[in-house]
Amino acid sequence: MQVRFRLDAELRFSAPFSQEAEESCRALIDEANRVLFMKGVPKGVDRSEVGQITRSEFSGNTLTLTVESGAYTRAHDALFRFRKQVAPSLGKHRLGIREIVVTDYSIELEGAFPENFRTPELPFIKKAVLSGRVLSVDLAVSASDLENRIPDRLVRLFEEKIEAAEYGGKGEHWELIYESGAKARHFEGDPTAEMIQRGWIKHALSRGQWIHGPQSTQLFRAFEQIVVDEIIKPMGFTEMIFPKLVPWEVWMKSGHTKGVYPEIYYVCTPKTRDAAYWEDIGDYFKVTGEVWVDEIRNRIDGPIGGLCYAQCPSFWPFLQGETLANDCLPIRIFDRSGTSHRYESGGIHGIERVDEFHRIEILWLGTAEQTVETADRLHDAYTHVFEDLLELEWRCAKVTPWFMAQEGMIGPDNGCGCGGRIGTTDYEALLPYSNSWLEFQNVSINGDKYPKGFNVKIQSGADCWSGCSGIGLERWTAAFLAQKGLDIGNWPDIVAKKVGEPKNLFKFL
Amino acid sequence: MQVRFRLDAELRFSAPFSQEAEESCRALIDEANRVLFMKGVPKGVDRSEVGQITRSEFSGNTLTLTVESGAYTRAHDALFRFRKQVAPSLGKHRLGIREIVVTDYSIELEGAFPENFRTPELPFIKKAVLSGRVLSVDLAVSASDLENRIPDRLVRLFEEKIEAAEYGGKGEHWELIYESGAKARHFEGDPTAEMIQRGWIKHALSRGQWIHGPQSTQLFRAFEQIVVDEIIKPMGFTEMIFPKLVPWEVWMKSGHTKGVYPEIYYVCTPKTRDAAYWEDIGDYFKVTGEVWVDEIRNRIDGPIGGLCYAQCPSFWPFLQGETLANDCLPIRIFDRSGTSHRYESGGIHGIERVDEFHRIEILWLGTAEQTVETADRLHDAYTHVFEDLLELEWRCAKVTPWFMAQEGMIGPDNGCGCGGRIGTTDYEALLPYSNSWLEFQNVSINGDKYPKGFNVKIQSGADCWSGCSGIGLERWTAAFLAQKGLDIGNWPDIVAKKVGEPKNLFKFL
Repeated sequence: MQVRFRLDAELRFSAPFSQEAEESCRALIDEANRVLFMKGVPKGVDRSEVGQITRSEFSGNTLTLTVESGAYTRAHDALFRFRKQVAPSLGKHRLGIREIVVTDYSIELEGAFPENFRTPELPFIKKAVLSGRVLSVDLAVSASDLENRIPDRLVRLFEEKIEAAEYGGKGEHWELIYESGAKARHFEGDPTAEMIQRGWIKHALSRGQWIHGPQSTQLFRAFEQIVVDEIIKPMGFTEMIFPKLVPWEVWMKSGHTKGVYPEIYYVCTPKTRDAAYWEDIGDYFKVTGEVWVDEIRNRIDGPIGGLCYAQCPSFWPFLQGETLANDCLPIRIFDRSGTSHRYESGGIHGIERVDEFHRIEILWLGTAEQTVETADRLHDAYTHVFEDLLELEWRCAKVTPWFMAQEGMIGPDNGCGCGGRIGTTDYEALLPYSNSWLEFQNVSINGDKYPKGFNVKIQSGADCWSGCSGIGLERWTAAFLAQKGLDIGNWPDIVAKKVGEPKNLFKFL
Repeated sequence: MQVRFRLDAELRFSAPFSQEAEESCRALIDEANRVLFMKGVPKGVDRSEVGQITRSEFSGNTLTLTVESGAYTRAHDALFRFRKQVAPSLGKHRLGIREIVVTDYSIELEGAFPENFRTPELPFIKKAVLSGRVLSVDLAVSASDLENRIPDRLVRLFEEKIEAAEYGGKGEHWELIYESGAKARHFEGDPTAEMIQRGWIKHALSRGQWIHGPQSTQLFRAFEQIVVDEIIKPMGFTEMIFPKLVPWEVWMKSGHTKGVYPEIYYVCTPKTRDAAYWEDIGDYFKVTGEVWVDEIRNRIDGPIGGLCYAQCPSFWPFLQGETLANDCLPIRIFDRSGTSHRYESGGIHGIERVDEFHRIEILWLGTAEQTVETADRLHDAYTHVFEDLLELEWRCAKVTPWFMAQEGMIGPDNGCGCGGRIGTTDYEALLPYSNSWLEFQNVSINGDKYPKGFNVKIQSGADCWSGCSGIGLERWTAAFLAQKGLDIGNWPDIVAKKVGEPKNLFKFL
C-alpha cells in the first residue's frame, strides 16, 4: 500500500522572530530536510518517500510549516524531530515554543480497497473520499494526537481492513484431529425440551437464561467432580477466584476491546449512592408499577465494562508487571467462581446456546514448551474423559480464527516448534436430534498474547506463553443428554454413580 | 391525612346528543350522585367525602364532567362507575362512548409534611405546591393512568413519605439475642493488609474487587465445606442454580424496584449483534488506544436490570404462579453459583466491604410454622459452627429494617405466633483491629413477601412463607482472620485441617 502524509502546523513562539532568528531558523529547516529527516531511512529509498518541510512562513511569533512525506520519517515524525532540533538553537535568540497548532492533516492511501469499504465514522476523521484505488482522508487532530501516533494507527487500520477483505472470504481454518467412533445412543429428542418437561430446568426471566432445578444441578456438579478427579487433581491445577465484572482496563490489555462489543452485556454504575438522588426513580415505580428506564439512563455512568465473557482475562492483573521465577513455572490454575454472559442471537435456543452460562476455566502459563506440553496432556485427559467415562460421540479439530491471524499471532516460532501450535482446538459432540455438531469445549494455546498485554516476564528471559481451556457445563450437559437421554439407566456407570438418582424436590398441583 | 380529588373529563360519544338522550343522561347523573356513588360507603361518612359529579355540560357529541370527592368513591372511581352505568342506557339512544379525555386532575392533601419534603419530579406531576399543611398537586394523566390507579398510589406514596419522616428518626430496631464469650485472639492487625502482604489476594481493576490467590480460595472452600457438612447436609438443603443477571421483571415482583437503585450495577444490552454496527467502536480503540465510551452509550439499550444484589429473588420465577403440594414442603434449597455485586461507597476498604462478593444463599419455604422452624434450626447450626468450629467472638441481634415496616410486613400473625418472627437476625463478629463489629451473615424470615410477589400458593390454602440466609465468604474470611490471624498454627484444628497449609504458587522476582 502506497501512503502519503501532509500536514500544516503553526509553531507559536514566546516572542516575535527577529531577522537574525528567522535566518537561523531557515538554515535549520534546510539542514533538517537534507540531514535530520534522512536519519534511519534505509538506503535505496526514494527521497520523495521521506519527510520534507515544503513550506515555511514567518509572521510575528508564528512559524507556519507544511510537512509532506511518504512512508519514511512521516510528516508528524518530521515535525517533532524538527521541534526537538530547533528548540536549543532558537533558545539562543530567546525564543521558546509555546504551542503547536495542527491546522490541517491529510493522508492519501493507494491500495486494493474492497468493494464494500466504508470509512469508519471516527470523531477525528473530517472527510474521507475513496476514488478508485486512492483513499484521501482529512483529519482534525491535535499535536498530542500526533504524538499518540493516530495517523500511523489509522493507516494500520486501513491496511487491516484491506487484509480482512482479502482473507475474510477464506473463513477459519478447520483441521480434524480426532474423531471417536460411534457410541451407544439412547435418545433422539431435544434434551432441553425433555428437561423442561421433567421439571429439571425452567426459563428464567432474562433472555437465554435458565433456572436449574436440583436434577440439572446434580449433572453440573457431577461433571465438575469428574473434571476435578480426572484433570484438575492429576495435573495439579490450583483453584483461584477470578473477578466476574470486567472493566475496560482488562479488555484493553487482553485485546477484547478490538471487537467484543456486539456480544457483551454492558455494566453501568450509579452516578451517586445518594438515596435522595434516586428517590424519584423509586417513587415512579411505586406510583406506576413500572421501572423508569429512560430516566435511569440519565443517572448512570459508563459503561465501565461488561460481564465476564472470556473467563481468563480477569486473572491477569494478578501478575501484571511481574517477573516470574523460573522454578514456579509452569503455573496451572482454574476458576469456577461465577457466571459468563454473552449476548447471543435472539429467539429460543436450548441450553446449548445460552446468554448466561457456567464454565470451569482452566489456565496455565510458562515457557512456550511448558505451555504446549500442558495443552497436550490436557488433550489426553479430555480424550480419556469423553471416551471412557462419558462415552460420547465426539471429535476435535484445530481451528484458526480470523482474529488471531489479524493480531499477527501466527508467526515463526523460536526454534522449539511451538509457534505452529498457537491456536484453538475445539471439541465437538454430535447432537443426534438435530444431526449437528456442538462445540462443547476448547483448548487454546494463546502464545504470548496475555503475558505481553499484561507485561508479564519470566526470569530466564524466555518468552512467557499461556493457554486456557473452557469447560462449559451447559454444553457438556447438552451433549451428554442429547446422546444418552434423561434416564439414568442408560448412562455410563461412572456418570450415573456421580450424578445419583435425579432428585425431584417440587410437586406442583 | 385528609385528601380531596377533583377531575375534569370529556366523554366523547359516537354521535351528538339528542334532546332525549341528554335528558336521559342528566337523570342518570342525578341517580349516580344519590345512589351509585354511595354504594359501599360506610355509614356515618360525611357525604362531602363521597364522589359527586358537580358539573355536566353537553355540547355536540361531548359530555364534559367535573367530579369531586374526598376519600370515598374517589373522583376517578366515580367516573368509571358512571361510565359503566351510562353505557347501556345511552346505547338505547345509539350513543356509544368513544373516548374519555381527562383535561384536569388535582389532588389536595392535608397532613404533617416533613420540613424537608420535596415533591418527586415525576412526568405526570404538572405542578405541586406545599402551603403549610396542604399539598396541592396538578396531574397530567390519561384515563388509562386513572384505571391504573395512579392517583391512589400517589396518595399512598405521600403518606409513606410522611410516615418515613416520622419513623425515620427512630432508625432500625436492634435487639441482642446472643453474645458469645471472649475467644482466643491471635491477631490485632488488619487482615486485608496482611493478606495482600503475603500475596493471598490482589486488587483487581474494578472498584471493591479482588483476585483471590490459592490461599484465600482455600479458606473460601474450607468455609463452604463446613457449611455443607454442618448445615446443608444435616438439614437437607438441595443445590439449585439461580441466575445472576437480574432483569427488572424479577425485582418488580420482589419489591427491590422500590429502592435498590443507588447500590446496583446496571446491565445494558447491545442494540444489535450486527458486527458492522460496532465496527467503528473497535476501530476507535485500534486508532486511539481508548474505549469510545460516549458513543457506546448511544448504541446500548436498557438498562434491562442489574447484577445479582440479593441472591434469592432470581429463584422465584421457578415457582411463579404455581401451587405447591403440601407434602413437598418445606422446600430447602441453596445456590452458590456466582457472584453478587453492590455499588458500595468509594475509597479503599478491605475484603470486609467489597463491590463483588461470593455468597452461599440458603433459601426455604413452606407454611409459616415450617419457615420459622427452619430458621430456628439454622440458627442452632450456625451457633454450633461459630462457637465450636470457628471459635469466633460473635453476637447476634434481631434487626427490623425500615423498609420492612414500610412494606407493612410486620403485622398480626395468624394465631401461630409466627407474625412476630418476621424480620432479620444479623450475625456480627468482632474485628479486634478496629474494635468494631462486622455483620458477616444473616438469617431472614420474609413472611409471605416473595410467595405473594411471585404468586406462589400452598395446596392446603395456608399462607406460603419463605426465609433466606446469606453466607458471605469474604465476610467469614475477614471475621475469622481478624481474630485468628494468618498463621495456620493459631487456627482451630478443624479449620486448619479443612484449609490445609496455604499454598504459595507464585514466586515473583
